[in-house]
Amino acid sequence: MPASDSQPRRPDIGDIRSAAARIAGHAVVTPLLESPLLNDRIGGRLLVKAESLQRTGSFKFRGAFNAISQLDESGKQAGVVAFSSGNHAQGVAAAAAIAGIPALIVMPTDAPDMKIANTRALGAEVRLYDRRSDDREAIGDEIARQRGAVIIKPFDNPDVIAGQGTVGLEIAAQTEAIGLTPDAVVIPCGGGGLAAGTALALADRYPDAARWIAEPAGFDDTARSLAAGQRLAADPDASSICDALLSPMPGELTFAINSVLLAGGLVVDDDQVREAMRAAFWYFKLVVEPGGATALAAALEGKIDCRGKAIVVVCSGGNVDPSAYAEILAGNPP
Amino acid sequence: MPASDSQPRRPDIGDIRSAAARIAGHAVVTPLLESPLLNDRIGGRLLVKAESLQRTGSFKFRGAFNAISQLDESGKQAGVVAFSSGNHAQGVAAAAAIAGIPALIVMPTDAPDMKIANTRALGAEVRLYDRRSDDREAIGDEIARQRGAVIIKPFDNPDVIAGQGTVGLEIAAQTEAIGLTPDAVVIPCGGGGLAAGTALALADRYPDAARWIAEPAGFDDTARSLAAGQRLAADPDASSICDALLSPMPGELTFAINSVLLAGGLVVDDDQVREAMRAAFWYFKLVVEPGGATALAAALEGKIDCRGKAIVVVCSGGNVDPSAYAEILAGNPP
Repeated sequence: MPASDSQPRRPDIGDIRSAAARIAGHAVVTPLLESPLLNDRIGGRLLVKAESLQRTGSFKFRGAFNAISQLDESGKQAGVVAFSSGNHAQGVAAAAAIAGIPALIVMPTDAPDMKIANTRALGAEVRLYDRRSDDREAIGDEIARQRGAVIIKPFDNPDVIAGQGTVGLEIAAQTEAIGLTPDAVVIPCGGGGLAAGTALALADRYPDAARWIAEPAGFDDTARSLAAGQRLAADPDASSICDALLSPMPGELTFAINSVLLAGGLVVDDDQVREAMRAAFWYFKLVVEPGGATALAAALEGKIDCRGKAIVVVCSGGNVDPSAYAEILAGNPP
Repeated sequence: MPASDSQPRRPDIGDIRSAAARIAGHAVVTPLLESPLLNDRIGGRLLVKAESLQRTGSFKFRGAFNAISQLDESGKQAGVVAFSSGNHAQGVAAAAAIAGIPALIVMPTDAPDMKIANTRALGAEVRLYDRRSDDREAIGDEIARQRGAVIIKPFDNPDVIAGQGTVGLEIAAQTEAIGLTPDAVVIPCGGGGLAAGTALALADRYPDAARWIAEPAGFDDTARSLAAGQRLAADPDASSICDALLSPMPGELTFAINSVLLAGGLVVDDDQVREAMRAAFWYFKLVVEPGGATALAAALEGKIDCRGKAIVVVCSGGNVDPSAYAEILAGNPP
């Protein structure tokens, strides 16, 4: 069935497998890491899917590449437009550069310097907007209309979701290789694309493993939406250090998938996120950005019971400014 | 031919393959990472073997596990003793814990707090000594004699070298998988065990790839020894932030191997190491400790010509105290 604007097709496991074939050789098969010391501390097995090591420093390259590599010739000629706080920006910029097509990214002025700098370094044109006063979707739509360019949405796009789902396929293969059946997986959540894709892939392989998302306090729109059974908005006055997860509401398509596949949402505050970033440094030698550390934070804080269980947490990105990271590290060791 | 104290057997590629079979399922197959942005900057391909992600935070687990898993029952009963600035300490502690045998580690008082804390957390007994006034080998020998314990030397041990060589086997397999033939490999060097093992494995698979080591200024004993054709000592008054690479002289066995297989030694100063640590953060999201960053520093500083070439650098460890790391990060971005 062809996709239409009003009713986007829901991706399935076949789409995720196709995405895996497309990204092979371009994306990193990120490792699934484990720390015996941390396992002792929590009394269970914690497996970290280190998407911070993905090309461009976050999982977003997977979905962007899967979407862009399927554009037809006219779409490629006009180029792509995206709006993003910085990780989807870099993913789209890198994928567009590989495809040899122009990319324009609409980014908030308060995005981390590293994200803006690297999006430009990857060859994309960057248009800044004010996250408090401007409407990024309207800006992106207007530019796309002027140029005839294709908008690559950050999460409400079946090809993007299928691409992110390759994280789940890899988790399934990597846990199978070590003979481990996960009891649960926890996934950081902004608009819900990574959660939807990963949940689809894991539901196929491990139907009994519970699938949770982890959100920052104030931006727990998916957690509340899951509980309410309908899409609810985030608190418009909330703030969080998790710059990658500040989406105002669950996506239509992502929520349609997540409301069926997820067990629920876990919520962590900024201090718990900082503590998880320090733990990622200490136990795994991984640089994880605030938004990328919410799932690890939820596990470490006991928001999900890890005792005697095997829990997979996705650390979804590592794009954090050195100065901000240094300040967080200078806090107490884990 | 059985090993003897006076003439330790030189490990060969077969020993490294056997080591790989032994460590499988215990050690991490660490990823070989690449940053298109950094490649653009240096005008070549730089591939980072991320041993900072190894179990215990450095490559040392490989050699320690390979040696300890081959102890006979009487050796296991008495336990093991090692002297180490902290990475071999953790490797031996973790391997001894898996084998269920006691480990005592002789460590310098000025080792990073993280290394001492994690060695203890892994279940080893730690005996501290003063690096300036005490002789760690004499202390280790005396304790081993009292207990009848087996000393696991940090580098002059054929089983340890064979274990470290699995880094080279993995590099060979990983480059082959992406159809890349490396022009050169650069390996951080203290006593030379990682260099010897990795060089052995890579010489077998890629005989034409140049094999270099990278050392901190003042501790360039292997570089000078290679140039002189005989073992020379490091400057006894030198100091460096590369705590893992402060060995006073090349090992006998390691130098016998390295003098045949290495092209030479590259030398970097502490500021170049700090810059490489910031680059590892920025481009790869990897926490790399000072000693682990010498090879990356040598490549970034043009100590080896990277233009138009494919260079593999080993980032050998990531055990750095958060406060020290935060201070280094606060320097200029790369």
